[in-house]
Amino acid sequence: MKTGRFISLEGGEGVGKSTQLRALSAALRARGIDVVETREPGGSAGAEAIRTLLLTGAADRWSQRAEALLFAAARADHVEKTIRPALQRGSWILSDRFVDSSRAYQGMGELTDDDILTLHRIGSAGLLPDRTFALTLPEAEAERRAHMRDGGDTDRIGARDSTFHQRVARSFRGFASAESDRVRIVDASGAAQTVTMRLLQGLDDLLP
Amino acid sequence: MKTGRFISLEGGEGVGKSTQLRALSAALRARGIDVVETREPGGSAGAEAIRTLLLTGAADRWSQRAEALLFAAARADHVEKTIRPALQRGSWILSDRFVDSSRAYQGMGELTDDDILTLHRIGSAGLLPDRTFALTLPEAEAERRAHMRDGGDTDRIGARDSTFHQRVARSFRGFASAESDRVRIVDASGAAQTVTMRLLQGLDDLLP
Repeated sequence: MKTGRFISLEGGEGVGKSTQLRALSAALRARGIDVVETREPGGSAGAEAIRTLLLTGAADRWSQRAEALLFAAARADHVEKTIRPALQRGSWILSDRFVDSSRAYQGMGELTDDDILTLHRIGSAGLLPDRTFALTLPEAEAERRAHMRDGGDTDRIGARDSTFHQRVARSFRGFASAESDRVRIVDASGAAQTVTMRLLQGLDDLLP
Repeated sequence: MKTGRFISLEGGEGVGKSTQLRALSAALRARGIDVVETREPGGSAGAEAIRTLLLTGAADRWSQRAEALLFAAARADHVEKTIRPALQRGSWILSDRFVDSSRAYQGMGELTDDDILTLHRIGSAGLLPDRTFALTLPEAEAERRAHMRDGGDTDRIGARDSTFHQRVARSFRGFASAESDRVRIVDASGAAQTVTMRLLQGLDDLLP
């Protein structure tokens, strides 16, 4: 008997995902909901070990194919050890990134979106969130925030160029139009509290 | 222009794979062939890092699904960084295990043989050896050798029970009958030199 809900937050570097995840979590807890905050890659002991392999080392350490398989392996562990048990006991899961990140980042080069969804079927029986919010900013604003935040000290994936990040944003718009019930584009500009209100409105139909 | 050849050796614990790999390698080198000896999981820097994740820790550290994805990720790196470059420069590759191990070990539980082959297509464009030798011993002899060798100090996978290893042996017989040109069952009993001669005979059609 699954009573919990599974929400993922997506969006490029500097869009405010972490801040919004904490704020949304607090808002849900204030309504008496038990919330588990998690992130990808990672979110379980095995997946965090794989995260270290993925995010450290030279930018060309992994081929696109190996990288997609490692993300899928980390996700399989995360789903089995953290997400499904939480949903089964009725908690809500809020995840900073999930499979749509793999679709956007790894499914548009040597591999296709179908390949990524196939890996997700094999690894995690195709589990999808009940709702996915893709936080978006006007491009110039996103770049400004990303640079301000980490002074250029990004990881292997954050360090890719702006053309790459534009393609990622276009992918998320594509997912939102193909799966309009699950994936919602949310404007991440303005005050943090305003953005949190937008997210809560986007959960209206799921809240008890 | 691919001129090298790709040979894999398969078989359970204690069957003599490592000894035969070295002996076969020496016999090929004596014929003037450049040989690269490698192994799975591993065989490249990235794949060896994944090997450490796979073979250490508790027996239930990884689910079947996560394990299959990690093996496929290691293999993708091994193929890209070690195997394809060697074949392209005309060397022969001798690998201690390859995808048939994953098919036999991970493709007969929660996942199917088709799932494992799909992972191999996505990870390594489905590359198969030119010839695969499955070394086999009468069951009692295999168990005796395995225990003698490592005194019970096996890794996560070697430690599984004998029913498991019998199913693995059955899988290899199935591959050999489905792909009789590629996969050959080789009797691993008798003197090591005799077994090496059997392997060399099994390469007759591939030798220059």
